[in-house]
Amino acid sequence: MNPPIRVAVVGAAGYAGGELVRLLAGHPSVEIASVHARERAGVPLAAELPHLAPLGLSFRDGEPDDVEVAFLALPHGASARLASRLVERGVIVVDVGADFRLRDVEAYARWYGAPHPAPQLLTDAVYGLTEWSREALRGTRLIANPGCYPTAALLALVPFARAGTLTGEVIVDAKSGISGAGRCAGADYLFTELTESTRAYGLDGHRHQPEIAQGLGDAGAAVALTFVPHLVPQSRGILATCYLSLTHDLDDEALATVLRDTYDEEPFVHVTDAPPASKQATGSNHAFVHARRVGERRAVILSVIDNLGKGAAGQAIQNMNVALGLDETAGLGALGLHP
Amino acid sequence: MNPPIRVAVVGAAGYAGGELVRLLAGHPSVEIASVHARERAGVPLAAELPHLAPLGLSFRDGEPDDVEVAFLALPHGASARLASRLVERGVIVVDVGADFRLRDVEAYARWYGAPHPAPQLLTDAVYGLTEWSREALRGTRLIANPGCYPTAALLALVPFARAGTLTGEVIVDAKSGISGAGRCAGADYLFTELTESTRAYGLDGHRHQPEIAQGLGDAGAAVALTFVPHLVPQSRGILATCYLSLTHDLDDEALATVLRDTYDEEPFVHVTDAPPASKQATGSNHAFVHARRVGERRAVILSVIDNLGKGAAGQAIQNMNVALGLDETAGLGALGLHP
Amino acid sequence: MNPPIRVAVVGAAGYAGGELVRLLAGHPSVEIASVHARERAGVPLAAELPHLAPLGLSFRDGEPDDVEVAFLALPHGASARLASRLVERGVIVVDVGADFRLRDVEAYARWYGAPHPAPQLLTDAVYGLTEWSREALRGTRLIANPGCYPTAALLALVPFARAGTLTGEVIVDAKSGISGAGRCAGADYLFTELTESTRAYGLDGHRHQPEIAQGLGDAGAAVALTFVPHLVPQSRGILATCYLSLTHDLDDEALATVLRDTYDEEPFVHVTDAPPASKQATGSNHAFVHARRVGERRAVILSVIDNLGKGAAGQAIQNMNVALGLDETAGLGALGLHP
Amino acid sequence: MNPPIRVAVVGAAGYAGGELVRLLAGHPSVEIASVHARERAGVPLAAELPHLAPLGLSFRDGEPDDVEVAFLALPHGASARLASRLVERGVIVVDVGADFRLRDVEAYARWYGAPHPAPQLLTDAVYGLTEWSREALRGTRLIANPGCYPTAALLALVPFARAGTLTGEVIVDAKSGISGAGRCAGADYLFTELTESTRAYGLDGHRHQPEIAQGLGDAGAAVALTFVPHLVPQSRGILATCYLSLTHDLDDEALATVLRDTYDEEPFVHVTDAPPASKQATGSNHAFVHARRVGERRAVILSVIDNLGKGAAGQAIQNMNVALGLDETAGLGALGLHP
Repeated sequence: MNPPIRVAVVGAAGYAGGELVRLLAGHPSVEIASVHARERAGVPLAAELPHLAPLGLSFRDGEPDDVEVAFLALPHGASARLASRLVERGVIVVDVGADFRLRDVEAYARWYGAPHPAPQLLTDAVYGLTEWSREALRGTRLIANPGCYPTAALLALVPFARAGTLTGEVIVDAKSGISGAGRCAGADYLFTELTESTRAYGLDGHRHQPEIAQGLGDAGAAVALTFVPHLVPQSRGILATCYLSLTHDLDDEALATVLRDTYDEEPFVHVTDAPPASKQATGSNHAFVHARRVGERRAVILSVIDNLGKGAAGQAIQNMNVALGLDETAGLGALGLHP
Repeated sequence: MNPPIRVAVVGAAGYAGGELVRLLAGHPSVEIASVHARERAGVPLAAELPHLAPLGLSFRDGEPDDVEVAFLALPHGASARLASRLVERGVIVVDVGADFRLRDVEAYARWYGAPHPAPQLLTDAVYGLTEWSREALRGTRLIANPGCYPTAALLALVPFARAGTLTGEVIVDAKSGISGAGRCAGADYLFTELTESTRAYGLDGHRHQPEIAQGLGDAGAAVALTFVPHLVPQSRGILATCYLSLTHDLDDEALATVLRDTYDEEPFVHVTDAPPASKQATGSNHAFVHARRVGERRAVILSVIDNLGKGAAGQAIQNMNVALGLDETAGLGALGLHP
Repeated sequence: MNPPIRVAVVGAAGYAGGELVRLLAGHPSVEIASVHARERAGVPLAAELPHLAPLGLSFRDGEPDDVEVAFLALPHGASARLASRLVERGVIVVDVGADFRLRDVEAYARWYGAPHPAPQLLTDAVYGLTEWSREALRGTRLIANPGCYPTAALLALVPFARAGTLTGEVIVDAKSGISGAGRCAGADYLFTELTESTRAYGLDGHRHQPEIAQGLGDAGAAVALTFVPHLVPQSRGILATCYLSLTHDLDDEALATVLRDTYDEEPFVHVTDAPPASKQATGSNHAFVHARRVGERRAVILSVIDNLGKGAAGQAIQNMNVALGLDETAGLGALGLHP
Repeated sequence: MNPPIRVAVVGAAGYAGGELVRLLAGHPSVEIASVHARERAGVPLAAELPHLAPLGLSFRDGEPDDVEVAFLALPHGASARLASRLVERGVIVVDVGADFRLRDVEAYARWYGAPHPAPQLLTDAVYGLTEWSREALRGTRLIANPGCYPTAALLALVPFARAGTLTGEVIVDAKSGISGAGRCAGADYLFTELTESTRAYGLDGHRHQPEIAQGLGDAGAAVALTFVPHLVPQSRGILATCYLSLTHDLDDEALATVLRDTYDEEPFVHVTDAPPASKQATGSNHAFVHARRVGERRAVILSVIDNLGKGAAGQAIQNMNVALGLDETAGLGALGLHP
């Protein structure tokens, strides 16, 4: 048996970071060498994340050293700066943050309000929507883990984009659990403000819009994209309801065939017979997709993930597995938590 | 002071019926003469609806008599049959059910799976989306109270339809609280199944689709309509996210102007500066609408109501008020319940 | 008809303050002269409390003037200082905060960590658990509105304390919705932290403990009190489960009789046949109590209120009504919001 | 490597059964040979439990054969009858139902309303509160898996019972998520009825009361027990707030020492520094306990579990692991799901 792969999680006091620790603790080939959170050096994880108390770990300060892989769950900007130092030292970096998702340095500056801190790495970074990136992931040093909404949306859209059936406009109406806003969210995210309530946001432009558009372009689709995210009163889960205009009419069976041809061999993406509920992905790395004709050359594709699972920590581990040549499903055996 | 108007609520053990009783109990010009629920004669309301215990009422069996107005919250079919007898006896009927919403008797048969039980009344019935029907409501004997989704959607869409700006396709992606499914819902509606979960449904066709389409047609729009309802984990509230194609480009200000020109004098419909949350309407008859440009000749209109308020019992009372020449806001003073 | 009574709400950007505005807007004898919130002068209420948008009000700065009644929903300390100035100017003050609840100035200092800012007013203040204070309330200038937990607990306990049946120890295990923590709560109160979770808190001593003990003492009971509050994942509502040791054995009927003898004529306190659910009080000023024998000389009393209704804003208005000689139920007609 | 242990789950369409399948699918030494649910033979699990779709299993009818272990998640009565046949055939039975929990056949008849269907097995059955039953579990053929409330309560109480410090009365005020009611629950368990609401139930006597009392007696405590269960608006999780009378005064440190001395070596029971939230156990087999002095010879012990984890399926697997001499934590590596 090989010695375990030593990994670090940076930004572990947040939700994506905490989920990485939770999942990595159960990974058969991995040892969590260190977990980092700014200004919390020496504090037990249990003080911030009581569900992780059984691990008996404490936060460390500073940068990971002596690890093979580092997962970064940091605000944009901070992520690229640290990634740049780590890659130089030969550490494989999985950036769960946003810094390496957009390949276009100007788009980055426009959407993130600052010049890219490490533009030289942009061409090296592999955009890790795993199902479409396995070749590129193998042996890479820098993985840009996709955003949660783009993961949900692109799992629904890319099969149709690749099939050349998209035309005109694509609308992605996405509903997300609140954990997508992170653990540092303010008063708008209090329980009292959000329970029993649903609302749209990001109508002035959400940073995941250009990322979805980039993914569509990569898949060969030249379409207009409207993306409207919503908050629904649940902690986890995304349902993306995608409205497509098609080049020619497809019935339910033909639509399902496009999805099945794409995903039938996939361990984590499942084509369902009924509209999936977001909860069936909760706590897992699984995604569920479903297609329906709703009119002449019109279709709705539904896609469900856990935003912290396949939408963040789960996919990050899946990407690491591929990059390192491990079993792609290692550490990701959990099924959705229901009820 | 006039003697109070005697009213009955039939189907009062359900959610819409219970909400009617709750609201009518606070109406200054009304006396609840009787509340009816099948097979519950003599049972105190408190046994079914403990929040109404302070009223000290009991269910009655049979049909309302000696009342001026009857509110019917019954399954389709049952509603039309009772309405027909009551109208004949001179009772003003507000049908909170579905039987008189579609004017086309064939559409009714197709969507509700049975011939219409009282087709002779269809031309008399006034479709009570109050803001557009005041003239017709005054003095009518039979009011078809709109469905919850159509109310939310049409409040967003009709201003643009009337302005002649709609073209191509309208998409209504609606998110509803669970109470829309009623109180007799089955195992799919258990708390455990729905908490922390969001899903689409009705992709094979929802009965509110032809109702929205009828309303769009009445407002002069000839557009294709895609309607996809969703369940979100909350009890009350609808958010309709409506995607429009416009005949010409309108900026945010122009879009807001269309809404403001329509609703500025309305007591219950409010144009908001920010995307409304569904909760701000909870427990009230208020609606909140908001418009945003999202691309060349593309707009999103958001509309929020309480499905049991403006989407059912509230609007039913508003319609009665108009029909009887009362103050339109009587009994409907409650603001949204927050937090 | 008399001119409306001019009232002010100070601290209106918080949850109790917002609820006061919501309820006072529907009070038939009252005009909201001004709503105050620190550092928000000129801001429309709708910006902070969108559900109040239909009122068209804006926040004012400074102190209320030219009003007959002022409701204070302020942090402790601030409340007493302002109350002191207002009472001097002849304004009737209803303090929804904590400053005048404990009559013992040393207890105040101990529990609130500072000397009382206006000890001279303590003897004047009437503790407004309305059902027990009507005589004292009439004509008073300063009302100490009870805390939410004490209201729930004392409605359950006082009847038995007065009957002289309590002995040994009383345990109050209270479950509260999150709104009790207020609108300025921090990261522990994020939706994500609290949804699908229940926890105890305040085990080191909660400020409502001495207030409940004071109320028990006033009612003639000399018992030990254990009080453990809990947060449950809902916005509003308190259920107090009270465990009593009795001086002699009482069966269910005898226990119910104690409650009924106390509350049968009360408009807002209802003795139920089944264990009440907290939701049946939501949005209302109603309370529901229920008693059960659980062993030899042992009983459980359940008490349910809306912490922002009878537990704060509702009772404040009820107290004002009594103090001014108005109909005690004016403005408080709303029944619980269900479902 | 040994061939996998073949196991069956009977009653797999319910919540406890579904959770067993979910967990067993990840157990390294186990193969799920068959899953059974009445009247669903041939139906894919995904049709009932979509989160298990990735397993590709279908329900079988009839009784398990050719398995080493059978988990029964059946209604009382049915469970004992099947257990009796399986044990005879040499299958190890883990009864997640209630039939073998009470050792007293008359108590069973009284609480379950029927004579025990297999009284001859009662003395063989091992009550599997694992932490106290390891010796007895090794090599047993019939395991009575404890109820969810008794598991939570006894983890808090037994250490003090064994230490001989309990006297007088113990009160267990337990708060449970709704999944405890099972998947066949009726209209009282609709989302709309339970969201944003808390209530007590079972005041006439809950079947877990004699089970907790039996456990206290086994641990040497002769105390009166009051047990009041509550439903809180969450799917999973139990918080038991236990009020103790002690034989002598113990401060916080002494109380914590009693717990730590008991649990310090336990993989699944953790003594916490702060009051635990129920969510930190969600989806896991972990339990968290915490003690606090609240008065002279008075203490509160808090205990948190996932009712479907340590309170049902998790503990069932833990018990199987011990019975078969496997690593006790096998298949139970998951940490709580947060947020």
